Amino acid sequence: MIVIGELINGMFKDVARAIDNREVDVIQHLAEDQVKAGAQVLDVNTGPYSKNPVDDMKWLVEAIQKTVSVPLALDSTKPEVIEEGLKLVSKRAIINSTSADEEKMSRIFGLAKEYNAQVIGLAMDRSGVPNSKDKRLELAAAIVAKAMEYGINTEDLFLDPIVLPVNVAQTQGHEVIESLREFRMLCDPAPNTTIGLSNVSQGTKYRSLVNRTFLTMAIANGLTSAILDPLDKELMDAMITAELILNKNIYCDSFLDAYRKK
Amino acid sequence: MIVIGELINGMFKDVARAIDNREVDVIQHLAEDQVKAGAQVLDVNTGPYSKNPVDDMKWLVEAIQKTVSVPLALDSTKPEVIEEGLKLVSKRAIINSTSADEEKMSRIFGLAKEYNAQVIGLAMDRSGVPNSKDKRLELAAAIVAKAMEYGINTEDLFLDPIVLPVNVAQTQGHEVIESLREFRMLCDPAPNTTIGLSNVSQGTKYRSLVNRTFLTMAIANGLTSAILDPLDKELMDAMITAELILNKNIYCDSFLDAYRKK
Repeated sequence: MIVIGELINGMFKDVARAIDNREVDVIQHLAEDQVKAGAQVLDVNTGPYSKNPVDDMKWLVEAIQKTVSVPLALDSTKPEVIEEGLKLVSKRAIINSTSADEEKMSRIFGLAKEYNAQVIGLAMDRSGVPNSKDKRLELAAAIVAKAMEYGINTEDLFLDPIVLPVNVAQTQGHEVIESLREFRMLCDPAPNTTIGLSNVSQGTKYRSLVNRTFLTMAIANGLTSAILDPLDKELMDAMITAELILNKNIYCDSFLDAYRKK
Repeated sequence: MIVIGELINGMFKDVARAIDNREVDVIQHLAEDQVKAGAQVLDVNTGPYSKNPVDDMKWLVEAIQKTVSVPLALDSTKPEVIEEGLKLVSKRAIINSTSADEEKMSRIFGLAKEYNAQVIGLAMDRSGVPNSKDKRLELAAAIVAKAMEYGINTEDLFLDPIVLPVNVAQTQGHEVIESLREFRMLCDPAPNTTIGLSNVSQGTKYRSLVNRTFLTMAIANGLTSAILDPLDKELMDAMITAELILNKNIYCDSFLDAYRKK
């Protein structure tokens, strides 16, 4: 599992304030804490209230790269914000994200090719998030086809079936889990898969329990990465254990510590 | 999920002593506690050290039925022990278990027919536990075929792929999880599935974590019942949440309490 840390996101009040005030230490601590906790990639999102997302993205990328050396997932709905980030990254980046919309895919896969980036592809289009596995699969297949057209390796795609909150879209959990399983069979080499995990527990009372339960169920069905809160220790324990059960890490009695020391 | 409480089993020292000394209250408390915690069925096993398993089984069944009214899973390798239990049960019982061995199946399905019992079918035969999904599927199919021969409804079968400890058989977790998914497609109506959950964590350091992680992964792939420790609250929380995610219970903010009050 590739753990993508979700915490550097301007939708969180503290982060939005740190971006506005250019508080380097707040962002750098968030970067360091997530990497220490097991994040292999850091998501970077200026947030919905950013007045100057291009400048904010540039500042964030530079601030983060001064203290940690993991790859970044440049997270924005605006291709020009992503592009400014791509110009600055020192490691191969992940673009977060394209949808299956034609115009969007052309722009994003063009950037991916130009800057040698990986891409998260959301199984949605202009008509919104599908409510069935079959529609998700259709959109994911369109993303795979377009990526191939641009000469992008399918392993460099992270297909995302789009997780919805269980309290408002309860029928969708099963559709998402089954979609992950089928996404992996869309092409060879198999694409990576990802989810924005925390969305599943949005507005629920037992957020961590819902998150970690969903995560292990998804891992059992082909999830290869997730955007999540790596500081949630119980979540990370569940993830490590799920991977152990699937024989992805070698068993030892202290397998939790062993994973974290890696 | 049908929760089968595992705690009335003579392999546990306290239970073995209670059976030997005919300590009714020890057994009845175990029965009551498990039912209160959410067990819908209680497994009853005289244990490996019972000198007189037929008498012990009869005593256990009577002691348990005086205080709770849930069905029992009569758990013994000896058909004559199961039969004496079947004569006494007040609710429809589950026979735990038959293997795919011809002689064993004939005897057990004969009993199931005679006493209108459900049956747990283990995907193993005289040569032992298979080490692949395909072999498990072959044995499960043989069990289904034999059950049909005896006129037993396939929904009254609980197919068990046999969980092995992750610390000694680490490749088998994935095989078991995938077996569960395929067992459900063996016939229509789909058979039930079950596992002896605690076996997966035998000898490991983080038993509860390993158990609950495995359980949610299995539920995501077609597990419809499990023999487990219902007094492990975190395990039950994980199970309830996994079922919520699969839309088997209706969401409400206090979904854990709501499940338990049912």
